[in-house]
Amino acid sequence: MKSVAIIGSTGSVGRNALDVIARHEDRLRVVALGGGNNLDELVRQVERFRPRLVSSTDPRAGTRISEALGADAPEVDSGPEGASRVAGHPDADIVVSAIVGAAGILPTFRALEAGKTVALANKESLVAAGELMIREAERTGARLLPVDSEHNALHQCLRGSNPAEVRRLVLTASGGPFRGRRFEDLAAVTPEEALRHPTWDMGPKISIDSATLMNKGLEVIEAHWLFGVPGDRIEVLIHPQSTVHSMVEFTDGSVIAQMGVTDMRHPIQYALSWPERWDATLPPLDLAAVGRLEFFRPDPGSFRCLDLGYRALAAGGSAPAVLNASNEIAVGAFLARRIPLTRIPAVIEETLERHSCAPAACVEDVIEIDAQARLLAEETIRRVSVLR
Amino acid sequence: MKSVAIIGSTGSVGRNALDVIARHEDRLRVVALGGGNNLDELVRQVERFRPRLVSSTDPRAGTRISEALGADAPEVDSGPEGASRVAGHPDADIVVSAIVGAAGILPTFRALEAGKTVALANKESLVAAGELMIREAERTGARLLPVDSEHNALHQCLRGSNPAEVRRLVLTASGGPFRGRRFEDLAAVTPEEALRHPTWDMGPKISIDSATLMNKGLEVIEAHWLFGVPGDRIEVLIHPQSTVHSMVEFTDGSVIAQMGVTDMRHPIQYALSWPERWDATLPPLDLAAVGRLEFFRPDPGSFRCLDLGYRALAAGGSAPAVLNASNEIAVGAFLARRIPLTRIPAVIEETLERHSCAPAACVEDVIEIDAQARLLAEETIRRVSVLR
Repeated sequence: MKSVAIIGSTGSVGRNALDVIARHEDRLRVVALGGGNNLDELVRQVERFRPRLVSSTDPRAGTRISEALGADAPEVDSGPEGASRVAGHPDADIVVSAIVGAAGILPTFRALEAGKTVALANKESLVAAGELMIREAERTGARLLPVDSEHNALHQCLRGSNPAEVRRLVLTASGGPFRGRRFEDLAAVTPEEALRHPTWDMGPKISIDSATLMNKGLEVIEAHWLFGVPGDRIEVLIHPQSTVHSMVEFTDGSVIAQMGVTDMRHPIQYALSWPERWDATLPPLDLAAVGRLEFFRPDPGSFRCLDLGYRALAAGGSAPAVLNASNEIAVGAFLARRIPLTRIPAVIEETLERHSCAPAACVEDVIEIDAQARLLAEETIRRVSVLR
Repeated sequence: MKSVAIIGSTGSVGRNALDVIARHEDRLRVVALGGGNNLDELVRQVERFRPRLVSSTDPRAGTRISEALGADAPEVDSGPEGASRVAGHPDADIVVSAIVGAAGILPTFRALEAGKTVALANKESLVAAGELMIREAERTGARLLPVDSEHNALHQCLRGSNPAEVRRLVLTASGGPFRGRRFEDLAAVTPEEALRHPTWDMGPKISIDSATLMNKGLEVIEAHWLFGVPGDRIEVLIHPQSTVHSMVEFTDGSVIAQMGVTDMRHPIQYALSWPERWDATLPPLDLAAVGRLEFFRPDPGSFRCLDLGYRALAAGGSAPAVLNASNEIAVGAFLARRIPLTRIPAVIEETLERHSCAPAACVEDVIEIDAQARLLAEETIRRVSVLR
């Protein structure tokens, strides 16, 4: 029996993780939950899974949970350190890090500090603080298991292999809704068009990242930290069917690929069951029904964000943190119809240029850099708006 | 430095194995070679690789090699036991079993008996004598590494995995030149049409097996013995591009696939380098250039030989040996224009029915069963010819 703590339990990955746990209650139990602002969902989760500790960003959480569970109510922490307490819960064997955004960085670090196995969905932890996270995991013996389908696939492809025999990692990308379009044609796309992701059902921020290919730029950085492979040996291939989740090419020319249906519960279960594999209660992949798998090289001219990812990784220091923060602000501005889609890479590039790159000595520094970069990006967007 | 013995060195796999060895002379050396009737090729190989022992089915081999190498000539054995002596050579770490046909069974068994690592290309060893081979390998601690691209792929996909977590093996098949054709339309095809294999450059017997899908029927049986998976959990998928060489589906629904260019030197090098992977000097797979991978379910109505493979495996005992022998005779008859392509499954089925299935107690029994089945199959063909 493994004990699981989840931070970000009310988000998409958190809810899928609880679905996986519900399907494997003979092997997994929930000891702590950290939720966001969806208090109704959090209360339902607490009633169903009976954790010992609950945290929420909503100060009404304590009262609501007491009302619902009475004497059976668990300890509820609604302070700013709540998520970190959940992530470091002494009884947790595995921590699912599923908070979206920079708020996930500190609690993820706390889990690694406590030597936990971390099922990682929070991108920012590795993009903005990769070096610190990996160093901490090495120090404490904590283990990082990626939940992101691409990195999860790479983890599977690398099983039983020697790192020295890896020639390239190949991340696949659906290509988003604008695959094949020219840069000029992307200036007029609306948020509604950009939110129509062809294969994965995801939140708005990630859908826009998928439309600009910034998601792959960020994933290249994550893959670098997770698997210790330099950026110039991490390739991105467009694969519209999203059936091959990623691949590893070995020095002998052999390519190992992981495939599956596009359902987040698969990689989540893999991370929770690792090193075992448990029976899936989900329908399997039917390749004959999929019929055709296609692969294209990405077009760097139309999808400039991908190249920005490689450049930030090569620049090192705080550049990836700035890339990530300024992208989040730029995506928000696009969704609010303040800038066109094609302005996103320009905002990031300008923010990267204006930011003075000081390497972070601790996670608190990273959070500070993130906050600064957001202000800078916001300023960049406003300045252009004024100029117009 | 690993010492290699090759039986069947003058055939296609044998020559490719020597090409791989020539590219890795810092790690591999040839200690013994067994060749077939191509004496010129064998003499060239002996001059180039300087083995300590040579065997040939041609009685002139000794004289020819003495003439060519003078005082440097190795020991030459041209008796019927020559191949077995090469396979059991005391200095060999790895034996490449590359003889085509039933003649490969006994020397392959000798290599396992001697506890060697066997890079296995000879299909008959597992199809006709699988149980005996596996039992012998277990007894002596010998290891079987498949060279066949499909089984080699499965071996790669299974690295680092737990056999209890394997749900299905999926063998891919190019589908041969007659993919999509109806059974009725296959009656009139000529040997020339059947020999045009779309993706692999192979010998005539294997090309016809690929056209009838009997190659997959035989491979299902091989996969069963190599990986201990029952036939009903071994699937065949048509994949015309031959880029995915095979796949493993795990109990959690995850599919691991091995891909590569269609060049036999890749799986041969994998078997020779295992458990390491060495740098390939061959061009890598360019998936974006391949562009599209397709998958179809095989049509059992048009390709009856596939089902015969499953049925022989399920029947057990000597049925797979009879299947293999009668197929070889039927293919020969087709190539000699004695029977139409569509008669091949009928000849096999009749031979299977007429043969009394006694399980083989030793490899000598298997060879006897093989010989009997050939006579029976020949008789079946002749009987029908007379009736016509």
